[in-house]
Amino acid sequence: MENKKRILTGDRTTGRLHLGHYVGSLQNRVKLQNDYETFILLADIQALTTHFKNPSMLKDSIYQVAIDNLSVGLDPNKVTFVQQSQIAAIAELTVFYSMFVPVNVLRHNPTVKAEAAQYGYDDLTYGFLGYPVSQAADITFCHADLVPVGEDQLPHMELTRKIVRRFNDLYGHGESILREPDALLSETPRFIGLDGGSKMGKSLGNAIYLSDSQEVIKQKINGAVTDPNRIRITDLGNPDICSVSQYHKAFNPGEYNNICDMCRSGKIGCVACKKQLGKALNDILEPVQTKRAYYEEHLDEVKEIVQTGSDKANQIGNETVRQIKEAMNIHL
Amino acid sequence: MENKKRILTGDRTTGRLHLGHYVGSLQNRVKLQNDYETFILLADIQALTTHFKNPSMLKDSIYQVAIDNLSVGLDPNKVTFVQQSQIAAIAELTVFYSMFVPVNVLRHNPTVKAEAAQYGYDDLTYGFLGYPVSQAADITFCHADLVPVGEDQLPHMELTRKIVRRFNDLYGHGESILREPDALLSETPRFIGLDGGSKMGKSLGNAIYLSDSQEVIKQKINGAVTDPNRIRITDLGNPDICSVSQYHKAFNPGEYNNICDMCRSGKIGCVACKKQLGKALNDILEPVQTKRAYYEEHLDEVKEIVQTGSDKANQIGNETVRQIKEAMNIHL
Repeated sequence: MENKKRILTGDRTTGRLHLGHYVGSLQNRVKLQNDYETFILLADIQALTTHFKNPSMLKDSIYQVAIDNLSVGLDPNKVTFVQQSQIAAIAELTVFYSMFVPVNVLRHNPTVKAEAAQYGYDDLTYGFLGYPVSQAADITFCHADLVPVGEDQLPHMELTRKIVRRFNDLYGHGESILREPDALLSETPRFIGLDGGSKMGKSLGNAIYLSDSQEVIKQKINGAVTDPNRIRITDLGNPDICSVSQYHKAFNPGEYNNICDMCRSGKIGCVACKKQLGKALNDILEPVQTKRAYYEEHLDEVKEIVQTGSDKANQIGNETVRQIKEAMNIHL
Repeated sequence: MENKKRILTGDRTTGRLHLGHYVGSLQNRVKLQNDYETFILLADIQALTTHFKNPSMLKDSIYQVAIDNLSVGLDPNKVTFVQQSQIAAIAELTVFYSMFVPVNVLRHNPTVKAEAAQYGYDDLTYGFLGYPVSQAADITFCHADLVPVGEDQLPHMELTRKIVRRFNDLYGHGESILREPDALLSETPRFIGLDGGSKMGKSLGNAIYLSDSQEVIKQKINGAVTDPNRIRITDLGNPDICSVSQYHKAFNPGEYNNICDMCRSGKIGCVACKKQLGKALNDILEPVQTKRAYYEEHLDEVKEIVQTGSDKANQIGNETVRQIKEAMNIHL
């Protein structure tokens, strides 16, 4: 375990996770857990950047996101679950790094700009503006080597790397006190929601959740938007503009090409196609649902997993802060 | 002790304190220590906002500022010395408050604007922009009732009070989780430097330090700028444009009017006037220098005072953070 490279990954605790998360990151995490020492951050502080007005759902979300991760196959004996708000070191590092990150660098960060626009913040909060600085703290408190990210997160990774280099330059006296992390770029296909229009998103009402029951999933698939020009079975379909075909690609890859051919040639109707998808999804989600049922009945176990992981993370984080204070000359 | 109101005050640890600090705040602190429970913050994190590039002097400054406070008569058995960087709760509160403070409020804060201009930061850092948020954390981590401030600090106090009200509104469910502090407005006369031109300041080379030896003080007074139109003793002087007269007002108040009269009527020369000031200052600073000599020989005692105070502050701060997390619904 000791010689494995360390991964830092995680989720904002703003609600349950859905198939978009599964395809975009959870699946990948499960694969990586054997070859890397993985830290999974339950990012409740970052959740506050957008949800500070409605914190009532945050506590439930912390548990639900932990259960989502456990249900898809992350092994609590292999990975470390960390509740962000329990790690004071992350807040301390955020404050330290903020000393040498110019406001303009944050204002011009493309991801901050895009997300600020998405959330409709005319009046950006100080915390939202600075969340890439907090992310640098998330990654460096435990000296992570690798961070699995999609392409849209690369500007944040570049800022973290800059902060690390700047810190080591300013205070390292030739030594690397902080580790410069690498991005582990993962293919995160744009995963379309059930409405066929936008990316699957918690806030958009177009998602299939890992915690949805089989009955709910069936209903959601039945309501999914397909090629709008296809009215009769014999109409030739266009899978490229059909949300259901995207799901086949992700969850029924062995049949994907065959189904697309049949759709294009009018040999399979939408009802049958959706039924096939339902079966494929069910095969994948059944073991997930079984695990979820177990953890929902054993919330104390979930709590202990998060607490044990956070305690371990605090030991590492406090030692990092100690080293940093010594380098910055503010230890007593 | 328990029923006394609590004061939060302190100094940035960017160098030794001078007579401007003595007149502007230290004298007042000594008076207040009997009637209030006083916390003195050694603000080494805030020092970093302007000194992050040269942290080599920070450690020495922490000790020197503590000794300056002790030397003027602050009693370590009555007041609590707190090293800011040791209090993780302050960083945690800073992060929490940053969620609901708009960037524009900080950009338009008159003190931030003025100080940013003074330090010549075209490219403001994120930490500098946010230091009023950190100040709110300094004040509220220990539920301070009162903060002695000069008029220029009133906008910061107003922001702290706004943050407290917003927090209690958002998360208090009718209760006041955070205490709204009051400003204890102190008369802080603009205290002119030895150059007669600008305010006495650490960075301006025009200051008499509490740690200066009697010989150095004598030399500095001899070099102080007086009325430039007065060349011979018999020339009529103008004390209103003489730095030395300001010092008489502050440190030799019983003789101030008399000396001004003699100056205006050409009955006292600058050399004699400066000699009188030297004597008056000496009477005040001799006990200060004696105490300083003791503490400089007993740095371990200073360290223990700061450590004991910081430990006490951490107990209070950690309890505050616990309450806040519970109110924000992010406890496990």
